[in-house]
Amino acid sequence: MKSGLPKVMHEIGGLPMVGHVLKALKTAGSERITVVIGPEASALETFVYEQAPNARCYVQHERLGTAHAVLAARPSLEFDADDVLVLFGDTPLVTPETVGKVRQALAEGADLAVLGFETGNPFGYGRLLTENGRLVAIREEKDASEEERGITFCNSGIMGFNGPNVLSLLDAIGNGNAKSEFYLTDAVEIANARGLNVVSVTGSQTETQGINTRAQLASCEADFQDRMRRAAMDNGCTLLAPQTVFFSHDTKLDADVIVEQNVVFGPGVKVAGGARIRAFSHLEGAVVGSRSVVGPYARLRPGAVLGTDTRIGNFVEVKNATFGAGAKANHLSYIGDASVGSKSNIGAGTITCNYDGFLKHRTEIGAGSFVGSNSTLVAPIKLGNGAFVAAGSVITDDVSHDALAFGRSRQVVKEGKAKALRTRLKAEKDGKS
Amino acid sequence: MKSGLPKVMHEIGGLPMVGHVLKALKTAGSERITVVIGPEASALETFVYEQAPNARCYVQHERLGTAHAVLAARPSLEFDADDVLVLFGDTPLVTPETVGKVRQALAEGADLAVLGFETGNPFGYGRLLTENGRLVAIREEKDASEEERGITFCNSGIMGFNGPNVLSLLDAIGNGNAKSEFYLTDAVEIANARGLNVVSVTGSQTETQGINTRAQLASCEADFQDRMRRAAMDNGCTLLAPQTVFFSHDTKLDADVIVEQNVVFGPGVKVAGGARIRAFSHLEGAVVGSRSVVGPYARLRPGAVLGTDTRIGNFVEVKNATFGAGAKANHLSYIGDASVGSKSNIGAGTITCNYDGFLKHRTEIGAGSFVGSNSTLVAPIKLGNGAFVAAGSVITDDVSHDALAFGRSRQVVKEGKAKALRTRLKAEKDGKS
Amino acid sequence: MKSGLPKVMHEIGGLPMVGHVLKALKTAGSERITVVIGPEASALETFVYEQAPNARCYVQHERLGTAHAVLAARPSLEFDADDVLVLFGDTPLVTPETVGKVRQALAEGADLAVLGFETGNPFGYGRLLTENGRLVAIREEKDASEEERGITFCNSGIMGFNGPNVLSLLDAIGNGNAKSEFYLTDAVEIANARGLNVVSVTGSQTETQGINTRAQLASCEADFQDRMRRAAMDNGCTLLAPQTVFFSHDTKLDADVIVEQNVVFGPGVKVAGGARIRAFSHLEGAVVGSRSVVGPYARLRPGAVLGTDTRIGNFVEVKNATFGAGAKANHLSYIGDASVGSKSNIGAGTITCNYDGFLKHRTEIGAGSFVGSNSTLVAPIKLGNGAFVAAGSVITDDVSHDALAFGRSRQVVKEGKAKALRTRLKAEKDGKS
Repeated sequence: MKSGLPKVMHEIGGLPMVGHVLKALKTAGSERITVVIGPEASALETFVYEQAPNARCYVQHERLGTAHAVLAARPSLEFDADDVLVLFGDTPLVTPETVGKVRQALAEGADLAVLGFETGNPFGYGRLLTENGRLVAIREEKDASEEERGITFCNSGIMGFNGPNVLSLLDAIGNGNAKSEFYLTDAVEIANARGLNVVSVTGSQTETQGINTRAQLASCEADFQDRMRRAAMDNGCTLLAPQTVFFSHDTKLDADVIVEQNVVFGPGVKVAGGARIRAFSHLEGAVVGSRSVVGPYARLRPGAVLGTDTRIGNFVEVKNATFGAGAKANHLSYIGDASVGSKSNIGAGTITCNYDGFLKHRTEIGAGSFVGSNSTLVAPIKLGNGAFVAAGSVITDDVSHDALAFGRSRQVVKEGKAKALRTRLKAEKDGKS
Repeated sequence: MKSGLPKVMHEIGGLPMVGHVLKALKTAGSERITVVIGPEASALETFVYEQAPNARCYVQHERLGTAHAVLAARPSLEFDADDVLVLFGDTPLVTPETVGKVRQALAEGADLAVLGFETGNPFGYGRLLTENGRLVAIREEKDASEEERGITFCNSGIMGFNGPNVLSLLDAIGNGNAKSEFYLTDAVEIANARGLNVVSVTGSQTETQGINTRAQLASCEADFQDRMRRAAMDNGCTLLAPQTVFFSHDTKLDADVIVEQNVVFGPGVKVAGGARIRAFSHLEGAVVGSRSVVGPYARLRPGAVLGTDTRIGNFVEVKNATFGAGAKANHLSYIGDASVGSKSNIGAGTITCNYDGFLKHRTEIGAGSFVGSNSTLVAPIKLGNGAFVAAGSVITDDVSHDALAFGRSRQVVKEGKAKALRTRLKAEKDGKS
Repeated sequence: MKSGLPKVMHEIGGLPMVGHVLKALKTAGSERITVVIGPEASALETFVYEQAPNARCYVQHERLGTAHAVLAARPSLEFDADDVLVLFGDTPLVTPETVGKVRQALAEGADLAVLGFETGNPFGYGRLLTENGRLVAIREEKDASEEERGITFCNSGIMGFNGPNVLSLLDAIGNGNAKSEFYLTDAVEIANARGLNVVSVTGSQTETQGINTRAQLASCEADFQDRMRRAAMDNGCTLLAPQTVFFSHDTKLDADVIVEQNVVFGPGVKVAGGARIRAFSHLEGAVVGSRSVVGPYARLRPGAVLGTDTRIGNFVEVKNATFGAGAKANHLSYIGDASVGSKSNIGAGTITCNYDGFLKHRTEIGAGSFVGSNSTLVAPIKLGNGAFVAAGSVITDDVSHDALAFGRSRQVVKEGKAKALRTRLKAEKDGKS
């Protein structure tokens, strides 16, 4: 990856790839989760415990192969009450349904189940050799006969073991190969030699693809986005141009939400039915109420909570602020650390000054207020219900209910002076050029 | 579709899909247009009459099949002076050329003409069985022999009837089938049994695809966009990244217009030759004059009319406003309900305050004016030709020709006080944390 | 192309297509570059001399075929010290590696080397007929036998001649064909007849595609963009959605740069490692320092130079301005012709007024300054280190170190007057409607 970040911490849909695997396991009902990490991966360990507080992490100190990695978690394997699934942190798109299929195979009597996938281009993958529904071998590309190379059913690497067998099988794996590594796939041969019941389970190539390069990361991200787009449309959302809408792993859109072109959903967004997210909008950590219209060019940042029938227009940024039902901020505004009462109207160019260089302060705007264009609201400040702020005002003190507030200078006009000014500026320009 | 909206009112290129069918019929020269709608579809009926004032709508009260639907318009069929074409509101991409081909077949002596398409994957479609140029049957997937399943020429559903025959054929269609429905396709068998001249006409699969899901809606939208993009390029426009440019059904771009990446054209846009629409721009109901440059990040809303050589820059919104030749608003402005004279310059951050909470008011800016940055123009207001507004001013009264207007406070400086302020604010912060 | 612009001046990745060919030749080590242009192509000639000052341009006065075009540069061919490569200005994606392969073939003894490509759909291309590694003929589609039409190795048009042979071969080409033109490809037959060593070299179809329409221009641009995206990812950048990132020919991104969705890089951009370019950003002629975060919706224009750890946020435009380490402008600002000292904070809605209608003036902001929101800085102006500008101020005069500056009116509140105002405005509205 040419990166300082551990590979499995690179993100898909805004969530580190290992987080997707943890999520799939939890959704599939796995109770005990064990993560094997490399040395000096404290950021990864911290992330795992945040996502899955009941998980246990073990460190693999040397990189001696996949079987060696699994054995780094020996205490978890000795627990042996249940089946053991082996997944990979760099294979983030595996679905809970597929994890469930592997568990189902074990529940139906398999001692070892290997997840495979069909592919049009099997070159380079280990082939799964099956006979009468049993998996007899995994054949690597280099060892395959010409006939075997024609097989299109390939090894994903993901496996499930019957709990009581797992340690015995793993301990039997040797490292008598070119790289002197312990390969998990050798378990298939050993299990077959012991007359155990070894089977294959079929997943899709998309969900089992691993990530080793930035290009594969991008390709996996694209597959993930397609999955999210299809789910949104199946759920009754209109995406005007699905390829231009980007989701996070946790985006929630109700039915009859319309999403226009070029919309990015960062983490933590919920949009209620009947809302429209217009083109070029960017939402993160935001809640959008029914029938609200957001954008084009709206940016909702974490803590933006819009009620029903609200309107956030172009070049408007909302951060940590609530908008009551029917409230509007249509143009070129920054509304941060604020509450805007229902049916209030925030004029174009309004800025809440929430930061003094040290602390953030709140702006509270009552219901039915009107804030004139290009106003500056210096927080902390409260505007009562029905307050009216004249355009271009700087408001530094609270405004009571139904009061009218000004904070601007009287206009002065100097007749004919524009002409004189132009003459002077032109002369200055001519002098310089 | 999982939607409250009638299916055919979902939009393609900003126009409800039924509107595309009406447009194709009108372009192909159809004189009488009849629309069969479901019960309680008043929004659809209203839309049809807006788009095609001479059309007639009939209600199908029960859903008893396609032939039953057509017979709901019996009075139109009795008229019988001309051929009868049957199209579908959820098949919006049919072209006038293809409609013309069906009419041509009828003009050349066909009694019944069925529109088919070639496809690489015919599974699920009714196959068109032809012999010596005649259409002998439409075979549904479930009734097809193995040989017939190999046929790749399929039924689009679109048909044309010779006028005098239509009622007799439709009335002969029975409902002796699994669903007890009256199927229009049965007309083929009946017409052949009567020895009538039944033919097929070939269209493309793209134009005959029907829409039943949001995913199909998105796919059809994508096909429509590709059609518009190709047409624009064939017409001499440069699209830097065609896949990122989105058109409406009525977008008009002259030759030698350049469109950069990520541009959305809403309905009602015309752009003259030599203009450049820069990246991330959004235009609706706007006219752009020759050699003008719009964007990046410009939003032109309905009523924006830009003369030649104008310049609308980043984060600028223009609504219901005219810009004379050579006028500019380059940065972070809202210009609404306004006229800007030729060669005037609107400074960064200028806001026209056109709304007082109840009414919209106009701003009129003369030719050759200079509006300083961060100015607030409180409408209704007029600035004469050559007026000059100082930066940061709030302008509430008219400014005469060549006059200079101020509306801002004199600056006050308190030496050393920033340091003291920082000390105080920092202490406050430390106290809170 | 339906354009007033010479075809080879249309741009790919922001550089006229002929510029790409010049760049490939220079990178491949070609010392003498000769360009044959059409009459009245002075803009093209100017561009060529800017890009390649040592190049020589010759005018082809009549369009009598490709061999005739090359002979327009006869003086360059007489020079004869070295091999002669013939490339085309409308085939911009040829790589230096492929140019090198043609040169290598000549160095290894070929008298004539023709660049071919393999294609899945050879229809319309001249086929390269080879025997035992020698190129025996180029067969045009119309002259090809059925067997020859099955050949998928096609002529790109690009050729290399052994220097001493070139004039003799070109002078032997006749125009005894349907169009009475002199075709360069005839050199193959002539050279073979003379018993010279004629070979083919293999490039890719992508790099040898020519451009004759806007659609081909767009397709070539797409191929170029894919090349740039792959290179960026191979170099260790994360592109969240590669298809939505657009590069210029000279974009330079260090490893561990993260680029979000929908980012456009215009010419002249450099981004240092650890920086993040957020969604919907547009950069031209800008330098971004390590660990800086730009966007979403940031526009960096030429001369924007950001130090390390800077932050340019949404709806902020920066032009010809430097930001010191840790400086920030997070929201809705225009910073032009300015310097912003390290760790300074520019509040939301700040505008530098750099233009008076005639001249541009500079704004200099010291280190550790705080410019309050919605401030207007009227240039030329200087703010000292640690200066503090109160929100909503218009600043027209210099502010010394650690000074606090105001330029705003005191707030006035009229209790209860908002209610009266609403009553009056509502009556006015009711009267008008």
